Amino acid sequence: MNEFELIKQFFVRHQRDDVVMGIGDDAAVLRAPPGHELVTTVDTLIRGVHFPEDTSAYDVGYKSLAVNLSDLAAMGAQPAWATLALTLPDNNTDWLEDFSRGMFELAEQHMVSLVGGDTTRGELSISIQCTGFVPEGQAVMRSGARAGDLIFVSGTLGDAWLGLQSYSGEISFSDTDLQSARLRLNRPTPHITLGQSLVSFATAMIDISDGMLADLGHILEASGLAAELDLTRIPLSILARQYLSQGGELMHLLSGGDDFELCFTLPPEHQLQAQTISKQCGCPLTCIGTVQPGSGIVGRSEHETQTLQASGYQHF
Amino acid sequence: MNEFELIKQFFVRHQRDDVVMGIGDDAAVLRAPPGHELVTTVDTLIRGVHFPEDTSAYDVGYKSLAVNLSDLAAMGAQPAWATLALTLPDNNTDWLEDFSRGMFELAEQHMVSLVGGDTTRGELSISIQCTGFVPEGQAVMRSGARAGDLIFVSGTLGDAWLGLQSYSGEISFSDTDLQSARLRLNRPTPHITLGQSLVSFATAMIDISDGMLADLGHILEASGLAAELDLTRIPLSILARQYLSQGGELMHLLSGGDDFELCFTLPPEHQLQAQTISKQCGCPLTCIGTVQPGSGIVGRSEHETQTLQASGYQHF
Repeated sequence: MNEFELIKQFFVRHQRDDVVMGIGDDAAVLRAPPGHELVTTVDTLIRGVHFPEDTSAYDVGYKSLAVNLSDLAAMGAQPAWATLALTLPDNNTDWLEDFSRGMFELAEQHMVSLVGGDTTRGELSISIQCTGFVPEGQAVMRSGARAGDLIFVSGTLGDAWLGLQSYSGEISFSDTDLQSARLRLNRPTPHITLGQSLVSFATAMIDISDGMLADLGHILEASGLAAELDLTRIPLSILARQYLSQGGELMHLLSGGDDFELCFTLPPEHQLQAQTISKQCGCPLTCIGTVQPGSGIVGRSEHETQTLQASGYQHF
Repeated sequence: MNEFELIKQFFVRHQRDDVVMGIGDDAAVLRAPPGHELVTTVDTLIRGVHFPEDTSAYDVGYKSLAVNLSDLAAMGAQPAWATLALTLPDNNTDWLEDFSRGMFELAEQHMVSLVGGDTTRGELSISIQCTGFVPEGQAVMRSGARAGDLIFVSGTLGDAWLGLQSYSGEISFSDTDLQSARLRLNRPTPHITLGQSLVSFATAMIDISDGMLADLGHILEASGLAAELDLTRIPLSILARQYLSQGGELMHLLSGGDDFELCFTLPPEHQLQAQTISKQCGCPLTCIGTVQPGSGIVGRSEHETQTLQASGYQHF
């Protein structure tokens, strides 16, 4: 199977109406809706760095797209188109079949068309660029937080980190717990509807890819502000609470990457809207603290107050 | 230097006015001009596959963007924005300094803003996605060629192939010839102005990245047609003619990739426009044959007629 056959077999699918030309020419030709701005993001996933060596091809396909959709969600954007730069050690058709199934399952859920790409030979690496729209001037940036805003996160934190530990074997899990933690690591849910629902209310938003403290740190740095967190209110899964009860450290759960939950700030007068949106989207939202003047993150628990390091994963 | 410092030092530059948010948030936010369609393309370059191991960082940066701009040129598009997915074995700042200089030199020539990207650690690999515009319905596809159209190419063919041979040492060159051949390989000229000038006249267009025969083959396949080439009219540089006079094969020059010249088809009644455009753009355009009913490519020279194989580089 040559490069063109490979693309045709695994990557050419039905296209959205706004795709004038998809895969098969020098470039894709696309129609953006009037009155909107484009929102575009690219993420590279490398085997052994961004996912464990033995992650299934299906999960690699799913996650490669999910991390990009999550970035669009964090801007409040509606996704539309993706391109795929895929570097493969060989043309293993079983792997490609599963990879494309995983990617397209998620793409179809969000009506995203794959409109172009490039296939090359080398160490396994996947770069997906995803483009969507927001109504003009509505994109939610990191820099808009104001002192007094409440800090919210969606879902629960630290489960993807637990999933990652399950590969190293440093923490032991029951079979069921291991499966659910790995599902959180390998098939993150991009919160597209939630992100879009928040565009009129959130002052700043980010998706949690580097770890909650690091990503909240990005909002605070861009906004020139500080945060005070109530550590007793961090939303945790049963698995994460079990980990803590066995002597685990909360800081690992707050610093581990790949949760792909949304973290956003909201003026207190919009707290009610957050509750309504949470119900509409079927997604728990928890207020974990407040934005303050100054810099840095302080965490309060029952017995102590501590300065938290906004550290996250660094490639270099 | 961490990932964020690296991006700030080497990749954050002045932005176009239509960039609402560039590097530094979850995604870029961009304003497309009304009445236009978006044109987008992505290409990956891998060391040892797409460029010789010892290519300078400056040339790698230049070429990584050039190959994408060339794809936009082949659609008749005006480039605007680029993203960079860069995978590096280490944070060698000298290499990054030179790479970014090469990339930005070309970007600034064409008023392209780098609006986002991702930096990861691994085997050296560069994926650039470039996006531009064409007036609605004006993109030049591969599929529009008609029987009777003339086939044109810009510039000269096969020089990049000669440049590539200079690395393997299989052909010997004088120092000056070696330099000029490598320049054609490492710093291809994306024919942006030429491509845009042709949108009202060309029926089909492609950039020559896989080799002239393979890329003309893509036009013919997409258009369901054949071609007859006059092999005595292939535009060749002094260096290429010298190679032929020493027993070299024309087929190598027509099958070697990376020329990044434009190949397009044009109804005979527009031949005069082609001459005018050639002068305006300062770029030679040569008619090398005609589009015919049927399939395949036939080459005629003084003494013989032969069927030509439209073979090009295949990754798998």
